[in-house]
Amino acid sequence: MSLFFFFKKKSAVITLTTDFGISDPYVASMKGVILGVNPWVRIVDITHEIPPQDIKRAGFVLNASYSYFPQGTIHVVVVDPGVGSGRKILLVKTSKYFFLAPDNGVLASVYRAHPEAKVYAVTNAQYFRSPVSATFHGRDIFAPVAGYLSKGVPPQNFGPEIREFDRGTVPLPEKKHNTIEGEIVTFDRYGNAITNIPGNWLDPHHAYQIQVGQVVISKISRFFQEVPRGTPLAFIGSGNTLELSVHGGSAKEEMGLKIGDRIRIYTEGFHEQ
Amino acid sequence: MSLFFFFKKKSAVITLTTDFGISDPYVASMKGVILGVNPWVRIVDITHEIPPQDIKRAGFVLNASYSYFPQGTIHVVVVDPGVGSGRKILLVKTSKYFFLAPDNGVLASVYRAHPEAKVYAVTNAQYFRSPVSATFHGRDIFAPVAGYLSKGVPPQNFGPEIREFDRGTVPLPEKKHNTIEGEIVTFDRYGNAITNIPGNWLDPHHAYQIQVGQVVISKISRFFQEVPRGTPLAFIGSGNTLELSVHGGSAKEEMGLKIGDRIRIYTEGFHEQ
Amino acid sequence: MSLFFFFKKKSAVITLTTDFGISDPYVASMKGVILGVNPWVRIVDITHEIPPQDIKRAGFVLNASYSYFPQGTIHVVVVDPGVGSGRKILLVKTSKYFFLAPDNGVLASVYRAHPEAKVYAVTNAQYFRSPVSATFHGRDIFAPVAGYLSKGVPPQNFGPEIREFDRGTVPLPEKKHNTIEGEIVTFDRYGNAITNIPGNWLDPHHAYQIQVGQVVISKISRFFQEVPRGTPLAFIGSGNTLELSVHGGSAKEEMGLKIGDRIRIYTEGFHEQ
Repeated sequence: MSLFFFFKKKSAVITLTTDFGISDPYVASMKGVILGVNPWVRIVDITHEIPPQDIKRAGFVLNASYSYFPQGTIHVVVVDPGVGSGRKILLVKTSKYFFLAPDNGVLASVYRAHPEAKVYAVTNAQYFRSPVSATFHGRDIFAPVAGYLSKGVPPQNFGPEIREFDRGTVPLPEKKHNTIEGEIVTFDRYGNAITNIPGNWLDPHHAYQIQVGQVVISKISRFFQEVPRGTPLAFIGSGNTLELSVHGGSAKEEMGLKIGDRIRIYTEGFHEQ
Repeated sequence: MSLFFFFKKKSAVITLTTDFGISDPYVASMKGVILGVNPWVRIVDITHEIPPQDIKRAGFVLNASYSYFPQGTIHVVVVDPGVGSGRKILLVKTSKYFFLAPDNGVLASVYRAHPEAKVYAVTNAQYFRSPVSATFHGRDIFAPVAGYLSKGVPPQNFGPEIREFDRGTVPLPEKKHNTIEGEIVTFDRYGNAITNIPGNWLDPHHAYQIQVGQVVISKISRFFQEVPRGTPLAFIGSGNTLELSVHGGSAKEEMGLKIGDRIRIYTEGFHEQ
Repeated sequence: MSLFFFFKKKSAVITLTTDFGISDPYVASMKGVILGVNPWVRIVDITHEIPPQDIKRAGFVLNASYSYFPQGTIHVVVVDPGVGSGRKILLVKTSKYFFLAPDNGVLASVYRAHPEAKVYAVTNAQYFRSPVSATFHGRDIFAPVAGYLSKGVPPQNFGPEIREFDRGTVPLPEKKHNTIEGEIVTFDRYGNAITNIPGNWLDPHHAYQIQVGQVVISKISRFFQEVPRGTPLAFIGSGNTLELSVHGGSAKEEMGLKIGDRIRIYTEGFHEQ
């Protein structure tokens, strides 16, 4: 191995997204196994606070963060209600990243954004811990496979490329003649409602009628201080989608919002006011 | 120092298990001190969410994770109700790992599993921060000692080997003629009850009567989907002990379980059904 | 680049203090950006559990931990109610550390302790992500600037040195003829009340009347076991200030304390008892 590749491998990054929480020994067990395979790899927690078995939330958090990592990063997702049943474990290779996840649709946004992705079923037990427990594939399969991948083992070594897998679903926004429709996909810590409506469908300099439940918001704000405290506002969030907020408060609580709530935006007649 | 040892030291791992939580400055202070002594070491959090001063829980979480780390890992436990009193700080060397912990029995499972372990009292103030505060030995003693240990300082340099220390207690399961008895030692995030009954005392292909409180479970399941949602089940968990769960729910809540609850397994007459 | 500087840079440390929580994708996005700029840097979380927009708490936690890190550490604070408005981002260089923080007074304790500090306004977009979002400067400005700083880019490259900025406020204790007065600045996880009264103003061997609300404590304890369980006590905490505690309980809950509560210590007539 040349010195170049030596340092290359030493800068490899593995991210972890799980529903294990941070109180139990599970996350540390995975990290121990990874470091046993590749002591040089950097391990970054995306989050372990996915609500138990909440595949949609895991998909959202991963999708909102994975693209900020360096090329070659290995993103590991263990939110896995089907562990121990016959569900496959998938290794997905896009032009820039690797993903390791159960075959349960948690990578739906990745498949949509990367039609070029190659998908492999992880079956080669040579890279697993032995024996493999029935309930903790995170430690016994995901962790060592991620470790070997970070050391340069090529993806096809872990199992055959496949074409049939669970592509999951991504709730899509709609753009019609004079309306845009979308929905709330998640909330953040502050109670901001994050929607699936792309920021580049909207022009911050135009007026709109943004309707969610009984509330109508009439413009896209650039920052919270544009409206009085306690007032709802809409803005283009850090994920480049429309978000709903209440200045100094929680949109979730104060506007009574929940995941799946529809947002309808009337665009006609407001553009040139 | 040869290049080999240089890189060897750079891959050293220190783990941290504390009851400090993740909101206060305490964990970061320890990490800062460690990195000041050895800038190359990898620091891995096992957990900082041990309930304040809960030595039993700390022992469980450490015991369920430490053995997955690479040889040479230094496991630091700071759950230390006696800080500032005269309790000793111990450095324990097994054939594979180092442990740094207060002399309060938190390493009970380690002592039991490793009769070969050597135990040193950490007394050599040359490796401490100065002055040592009365209330934060984690930062002022554990952290720098772990750092120097990771740089290759031999254990006997930190203080004398000792033979008298608090070995703690480990609740042991019992195997009788036609019954197995054990107890619930902890719960995980999902409300699964983790017992001290070894998985290799049980055969997943046989029938049993597993009694806990008013509930009787009649088999060992391999995964949750074997029983209907809302139904209790028993399985061999990732720590190779019997666990009790409710499919899609919390065994703790729905079965009304608590730590120390007895499990009795009737084995007779079920093996050949 | 010489080998010396290569390894020097590889041991650089960046700390993060935010109010982002650990459930959302925000912290990981920052870490991804940092590692994209400098794959070798060590990233240490101080905490992400600052209550939303609580500048005072952020200042306290940072101030209680930053000085334990190695020389050259870059401390990044993103508690930033004014994000998207015109508030500046500051790069502060003391004799030992760098700090990156919004111009909102969160570094008040740093400015007080380090009159030698140089303060730069971070304005050079060459070091920012592009485009810069309106709401997430942590990812788009703080993270890449910290990354470049860790690679050795000199501070003046990021923008002009300035002299007008928000120095914030630090609640100061007072020492009078026969009284000392101070206040509660924060609480830790255990409910201990941390005050701003310096430990070196007090002598653990003398008697005092320490009055907080209706409670009077008459001595400085060295450890909890000096008083019966359930009893209030005062001691010099790990941050070298007076702390109030209840043995085996929460001073916050059981003494009904809150941030800003005054502590008055009568020193006269007690020294020689």
